[in-house]
Amino acid sequence: MDRQTLIAEIFRKQSFLCIGLDTEPSRLPQPLQGQVDGVFEFNRRIIDATRDLCVAYKPNLAFYEARGAEGWRDFERTIQYIGSEHFIIADAKRGDIGNTSRLYAEAFFLRLPCDAVTVSPYMGADSVAPFLTFEGKWAVVLAITSNPGSADFQERRLVLTGAPLWERVIEQGKQWGTPDNLMFVVGATHPHVFTRVRAIAPEHFLLVPGIGTQGGDLETVCRHALTPQAGLLVSVSRSVLYASSNEDFAEAARAEAKRLQEQMAHFLQAVTVTG
Amino acid sequence: MDRQTLIAEIFRKQSFLCIGLDTEPSRLPQPLQGQVDGVFEFNRRIIDATRDLCVAYKPNLAFYEARGAEGWRDFERTIQYIGSEHFIIADAKRGDIGNTSRLYAEAFFLRLPCDAVTVSPYMGADSVAPFLTFEGKWAVVLAITSNPGSADFQERRLVLTGAPLWERVIEQGKQWGTPDNLMFVVGATHPHVFTRVRAIAPEHFLLVPGIGTQGGDLETVCRHALTPQAGLLVSVSRSVLYASSNEDFAEAARAEAKRLQEQMAHFLQAVTVTG
Repeated sequence: MDRQTLIAEIFRKQSFLCIGLDTEPSRLPQPLQGQVDGVFEFNRRIIDATRDLCVAYKPNLAFYEARGAEGWRDFERTIQYIGSEHFIIADAKRGDIGNTSRLYAEAFFLRLPCDAVTVSPYMGADSVAPFLTFEGKWAVVLAITSNPGSADFQERRLVLTGAPLWERVIEQGKQWGTPDNLMFVVGATHPHVFTRVRAIAPEHFLLVPGIGTQGGDLETVCRHALTPQAGLLVSVSRSVLYASSNEDFAEAARAEAKRLQEQMAHFLQAVTVTG
Repeated sequence: MDRQTLIAEIFRKQSFLCIGLDTEPSRLPQPLQGQVDGVFEFNRRIIDATRDLCVAYKPNLAFYEARGAEGWRDFERTIQYIGSEHFIIADAKRGDIGNTSRLYAEAFFLRLPCDAVTVSPYMGADSVAPFLTFEGKWAVVLAITSNPGSADFQERRLVLTGAPLWERVIEQGKQWGTPDNLMFVVGATHPHVFTRVRAIAPEHFLLVPGIGTQGGDLETVCRHALTPQAGLLVSVSRSVLYASSNEDFAEAARAEAKRLQEQMAHFLQAVTVTG
């Protein structure tokens, strides 16, 4: 999916919600517990209940690889089931030497119809470049992540500039790709960074985890980082997927997604007027 | 496999060779090209031809994920075929927020009998910690990788210490784990760093890629980083796997592995005498 289509979908649906399909067999609601096809069936019902409220789905590969080849099959079926009208992010946090990263890119972009892959920048330019060579496909580069460990290296300041490593990642990422094929991950648990991120990368989409269970605040993120072209995908996983652990899990997921979409509509209208 | 067993195997076999099973369907030798079970059959014959010459095997997940669930099945069969007498490194370069990294660790250490997983440090302590909680299992943390992109961030100097990021990763890694459950990746394409690495981490095992096709030199690495407890696993992939593209591929792989093992025996003897 290209940038213009993504932006159009966001304004049509009045939503920049990305639902993380981080499906754990042990957390399946009661009716699906222990069923042979439980994970895919859960995903199918979550997707059916939320299609009109979100623009993106983001399955995290760890949750599928945890069940080996069988899990990979569920991942592939889920991707196929989502279809081409949503932006699909394989949350894989991959990155390897150039010829190896190319294989990851082919796996997600050629074999499977993913639109984007999350990529760790630690190995530098040649580890990210192969994800940027496919028309309409995206690399989503980790800049500053939502977890406590983001303090260990991402926030370390570099000599010469005095700026933290994550700023350097954004500066470099801007040279590797364009706002049409590269996004950055910026965790909502770092509310103080969004103004600075927008100063460096005014046009790039940001994929923002950390709202909900992890404690980030949607309004703060929007106030500093939402643009007239939206420029945000806000990702929510557990608070939608596990809104209820009973028979009504899909309705409960829809209600939570709806609540978030309505907030997003409000922020989008504000930015449309002022932008 | 625990540290003592790994060291004992290295001295018994007079080898610290790790063979990277980076098997590309398009590079299979003529007799296996296009065969349904070509990848697994290739791995099986490479393993049979090299078992006594190496102490570790390292399949890189990208080469298996490139074929989706079917590739995962080949990965799993390969791991099972290797068995428990070799140190098995899943070269996956994983790393995610804590609860998600835990799933990766379970996938490789509980579902599958891998001994180690390569881990990207960018997301910090909680992304690595889950790999360190399994008895006899290891995290192999990327410090300074063998590819050109290692210059982009890994070699950037940090304020306060003035040392490059990779040194900080090693310093932190030493606090996260011990020489019994944590190794570092240090690419042989950076010959100048090994003395410094050993000054910071005298006891930790180093996993060293970059010998062979990528141009690193075994003797230089050994001179600066081999210890009386060995402390090295040197990884070679393409120059062994694709030593011949004909019927004799397994014999050719063995000959190349043998050549490396004999060099390693020489260096081990030197370090045993002087150490």
